[in-house]
Amino acid sequence: MPVTITDKVLKNSSLPMNDTRIYFDNAATTALSPEVLEAMLPYMKENFGNPSSIYSYGRETRLAIENARKSVAKALGVKPGSIFFTSGGTESNNTAIAASIRDLGCSYIITSQIEHHAVLHTVEHYGHTTNVEVSYVKLKEDGHIDLVDLESQLEEQTEKGHKCLVSLMHANNEIGVLLPIKKVGELCQKYNAIFHSDCVQTVGHYPINLSEIHVHFISASSHKFHGPKGVGILYVNEDINIKPFIFGGGQERNMRAGTENVYGIVGFAKALDIAMDDYEKESNNIRKLKLYMAEKIKENIPGVSFNCGDDALYTVLSVCFPKTDHSEFLLMNLDINNICASGGSACSSGANAGSHVMKALHKEDHYTTVRFSFSKYNTIDEVDKVVEKLKELL
Amino acid sequence: MPVTITDKVLKNSSLPMNDTRIYFDNAATTALSPEVLEAMLPYMKENFGNPSSIYSYGRETRLAIENARKSVAKALGVKPGSIFFTSGGTESNNTAIAASIRDLGCSYIITSQIEHHAVLHTVEHYGHTTNVEVSYVKLKEDGHIDLVDLESQLEEQTEKGHKCLVSLMHANNEIGVLLPIKKVGELCQKYNAIFHSDCVQTVGHYPINLSEIHVHFISASSHKFHGPKGVGILYVNEDINIKPFIFGGGQERNMRAGTENVYGIVGFAKALDIAMDDYEKESNNIRKLKLYMAEKIKENIPGVSFNCGDDALYTVLSVCFPKTDHSEFLLMNLDINNICASGGSACSSGANAGSHVMKALHKEDHYTTVRFSFSKYNTIDEVDKVVEKLKELL
Repeated sequence: MPVTITDKVLKNSSLPMNDTRIYFDNAATTALSPEVLEAMLPYMKENFGNPSSIYSYGRETRLAIENARKSVAKALGVKPGSIFFTSGGTESNNTAIAASIRDLGCSYIITSQIEHHAVLHTVEHYGHTTNVEVSYVKLKEDGHIDLVDLESQLEEQTEKGHKCLVSLMHANNEIGVLLPIKKVGELCQKYNAIFHSDCVQTVGHYPINLSEIHVHFISASSHKFHGPKGVGILYVNEDINIKPFIFGGGQERNMRAGTENVYGIVGFAKALDIAMDDYEKESNNIRKLKLYMAEKIKENIPGVSFNCGDDALYTVLSVCFPKTDHSEFLLMNLDINNICASGGSACSSGANAGSHVMKALHKEDHYTTVRFSFSKYNTIDEVDKVVEKLKELL
Repeated sequence: MPVTITDKVLKNSSLPMNDTRIYFDNAATTALSPEVLEAMLPYMKENFGNPSSIYSYGRETRLAIENARKSVAKALGVKPGSIFFTSGGTESNNTAIAASIRDLGCSYIITSQIEHHAVLHTVEHYGHTTNVEVSYVKLKEDGHIDLVDLESQLEEQTEKGHKCLVSLMHANNEIGVLLPIKKVGELCQKYNAIFHSDCVQTVGHYPINLSEIHVHFISASSHKFHGPKGVGILYVNEDINIKPFIFGGGQERNMRAGTENVYGIVGFAKALDIAMDDYEKESNNIRKLKLYMAEKIKENIPGVSFNCGDDALYTVLSVCFPKTDHSEFLLMNLDINNICASGGSACSSGANAGSHVMKALHKEDHYTTVRFSFSKYNTIDEVDKVVEKLKELL
């Protein structure tokens, strides 16, 4: 279906960056929005108190944190008491997995081969060092999980007396495939399993009402939606009780010790607030950019295919270019031409090992995969330039 | 010895705060210095790349992190490869203790009752949930540890076949007592023990050359020396090999997963750089403020005593006021009068439980303890005002 760009997306006047580079790697990180920085700055200047201090300086920052918590909780449809601020998505994932084993009695973990390393490596660690067993759910060719296999694994392990932890990401960061999170939640409920979902690519990108999903833990990180780096949240369903992952002072109601990253927390809430306020408009624009680029690529470059179906993340366009001498050095040549895109997740982009996601989907031998991922700061003009350059390079 | 204030410390023109409150709780947290904020801002604006990305935006932030690491390593007299950035002192303490047990074979922990909760509660957790045994070194009346007891415990446990972890803070955050860190390091070396020191109150306040100290881990946090909150370091001696505490991507050379808090890391290095450059001047000024305040208090308020001897932290003045109806509400009344000080550490200041440090030193029943702690932004004029107010209130 051809996409008509009626409302040409123009450069936002309050752009955080102001250079000639084209940044199409917003799934790796996003630019901090100027409005978010503005909200953070008072807490980097006059409001510097330790939120645990009882005098005025402390009360000011305590209030800022609790307001941030309320705002995030409201955006996710849950009570403030279920939101805990952490240093990022990775710490949140580690906390959920460690607590499920240590505090909730999980002895079996079902996950997938295409999870982020923050889940995969954590699960592997506990699989190697404790009695916990791990298995991986079957994947369909397009990266969707096989729900029938998930249910049969849950049934089998529950019958064996295991309490299961299911850890499946809401959206895959490399190919954009989305989990049917409600259905998975229902299956977990049926088998009394703990359900954790890494929502790092979806919180701030979709309206998510956690009160409608049977999930025990979700992780999110604000630098994926124009908020600051170094701050994340862990949602912990109020039906469960866990101990801290990081021990120490009584911060976060004794659940996450350490002096709070006040500006980070304020920034997280502000970024989520803006993202949800502007969701309709910005998601439509970004979706159009993605579809437009897909179409342009199909028109101009022979032999390409796409990893994401129509129901994938609207922010991610994962393209398979046939392996040739030209495509091998594509990312490097894009970089030389001031175009930023990636081969997979940022975490593995430095390594020659290739993408564990492409490997799991048996695509790594025949294709060079490039992930283009968009934000509200990208434009149609940029897409045209990138497609032009791709034609030239391939 | 009377203190003569020849170079009256004047308000710094680049003060981060600009109100009438007097902030004498710099051991809880410090104001971010404007120079540090300035160094951080480019990484909150145009240099937003994910340091793990291979294109230009990523290389810029990677370079910033590695330059920060080099700068911090140089200030501490060690190689960059031994410095790891974390989300703060608490995470660093947790990492050191967890790794000592899990990766270094420590089965016995010797610590003290006056450690920060980030150590105490972590040690208690492992004491309760693993086979690790814990004991507390004897304390002298003034809070110094009893080195003879430490050696006899090390000897006894080593003979029993235990590998020991000694975790003792470099300076106590409540009373300011300093550890003879070199001597403790030598004892640990003699008994082949792992030595961790929480240096959150001393890094940025003293020149510390780790190459001259036999220590395996130190923890530090930049918000204690006018750097940002939410970032810390863990020094790991190159003679030991540990696994991550937080698993995931390959950040920090596979030692601490999670997208780096780039501005935090840049801010940590800048704050330490400034602190070491200005050490002679600022530490002299702060030391004078402290001594001046101690003298003024002695002159004006009967029955007071001080928790810190002459060899304590120059930034902390811990005062014991005799318990009376007036002293019970002293902190609250100081707050009403725009004076910020604390009863102990910030982490416990909200609770009625009182200070675990005062309890361990058997002082809690007879005294109301107030910690005044100073920074380069404080002035003699502020001390005069606070002492005047103390006279009035008591």
